[in-house]
Amino acid sequence: MPKIVDHEARRAELAEAMWRVVYRDGAAAATVRSIAAEAGWSPGALRHYFTTQTELLAFALEHVMANATERFHAEDWTGPIREVVQRLLEELLPLDQQRVREMEVWLLLAARVPADPLARTRVAEADDGVRRATELAVTALADAGLVAPDRDVPTEATRLHALLDGLALHALLHPDLMPPDRVRAALAHHLDDLPRATGPSAADTS
Amino acid sequence: MPKIVDHEARRAELAEAMWRVVYRDGAAAATVRSIAAEAGWSPGALRHYFTTQTELLAFALEHVMANATERFHAEDWTGPIREVVQRLLEELLPLDQQRVREMEVWLLLAARVPADPLARTRVAEADDGVRRATELAVTALADAGLVAPDRDVPTEATRLHALLDGLALHALLHPDLMPPDRVRAALAHHLDDLPRATGPSAADTS
Repeated sequence: MPKIVDHEARRAELAEAMWRVVYRDGAAAATVRSIAAEAGWSPGALRHYFTTQTELLAFALEHVMANATERFHAEDWTGPIREVVQRLLEELLPLDQQRVREMEVWLLLAARVPADPLARTRVAEADDGVRRATELAVTALADAGLVAPDRDVPTEATRLHALLDGLALHALLHPDLMPPDRVRAALAHHLDDLPRATGPSAADTS
Repeated sequence: MPKIVDHEARRAELAEAMWRVVYRDGAAAATVRSIAAEAGWSPGALRHYFTTQTELLAFALEHVMANATERFHAEDWTGPIREVVQRLLEELLPLDQQRVREMEVWLLLAARVPADPLARTRVAEADDGVRRATELAVTALADAGLVAPDRDVPTEATRLHALLDGLALHALLHPDLMPPDRVRAALAHHLDDLPRATGPSAADTS
C-alpha cells in the first residue's frame, strides 16, 4: 500500500515542520502559509492535507496528546504516592517551554470550541485525558489513605481538575504572577489539604 | 469639541452592533466585516476604528468589564457573608447566556496573549479584576471567621482564583459535564472547606 505509506510519511513530515514553527515562533505562527514554507511545500500542496487553521491546530493537538502519552510511558512512576501524584499532575502544567507551546496550541483550539465542531471534539478528547488523570490521582491518594475518608472522591477529582486547569491558564497567561515554583506550590498545597477531615467547622463560633 | 463627541458616539454605536452580533452568533462571529454589516457601515469605515480582529476583541472585552462593574454596583450585597461571597464569585462564572458570550470574548483574546501585546494588556486587566474579587472574597470570609486561622489568606486567594477560572473554563468548554448546578456546587464545596483547620493529617497512620 505505497500510497497510504506516502500519505502517512508526508503527514509526519508536515507534523515535524509544524512543530519546528510552533516551538520557534509560538502556536499563533502556525499557519498554512508558514508551515508550507517551513516544509518547503507550496501552500496549495499543504491545503491537500489541511484546508483551515482549525484543522491545522487539531492536527497539532493530536501530537500534543501523543507527546504527553509518550512522556507518561517514559517516566519512572515508582516512589511515595504523594510525590508520584504531584509529578503526574505537573506533567499536565505548562512548566517548561515545550509544554508552554503545547498549551498555546490547546488554548487556540479551545477558543474555537464554541464556534467549531472539530475544535470541540479534539479539545474534549484532550480534556478527557486530563480529567482521567485527576481521577486517577485522587483515587490513588484515597487508596493510600491520603484523602480524608469523609471526602467524596468524584467531587474531589472535579475540584482538582478545575484547580489544575486554572493553574495551567494562569501559568501560561501570567507567568510574572505565577512562575513555575508558585504553580507547583499551589498544587502541593491543594494536595496537602485532601487528608484533612471535614470535621466540625472551625467557624462554628462565628 | 463636536469631533470628539462624534467619535465617542460612533464608538458606542459600533459597540452596540458588535454585541448584537456576539449575542446572536457568538464571539467568533465578530469580524470587521460582520460588524460593519450589522452597523450599516462599510468595512472601510469600520477599519478607521479597528484594523485587526485583536483590536475588535480588546474593545469587546472593555465592554465585558464595564458590564461586570455595572452588575456589581446594581446588585444588593447585603446578607450572610458566606452567601454574598458565593453570589459575588458566581457573577464571574459563565452561568447564563450573557456571561457565556462574555467569556467567549475573553477566551478568544486570551488565546492571543502569547503572540499579541494588546491582547496581553487587556486580558491582564480583566484577570486582575477577578484576582481582586477572589482576594476580597477570602478576606471577607476570614474576617467573618470562615477561614481557619492557620490558613494563609493570600495562598487561599491564589487557590480560589485558579479554581474559579478552571470552573469557568469547564463550564464554557464542557457544559454537558459541568452544567451550572455542578459548577455552583463545586464552588460551594471549596468555600465550605476553608473553615476546616489544617490540623494533624487524617493520613498520619498510612
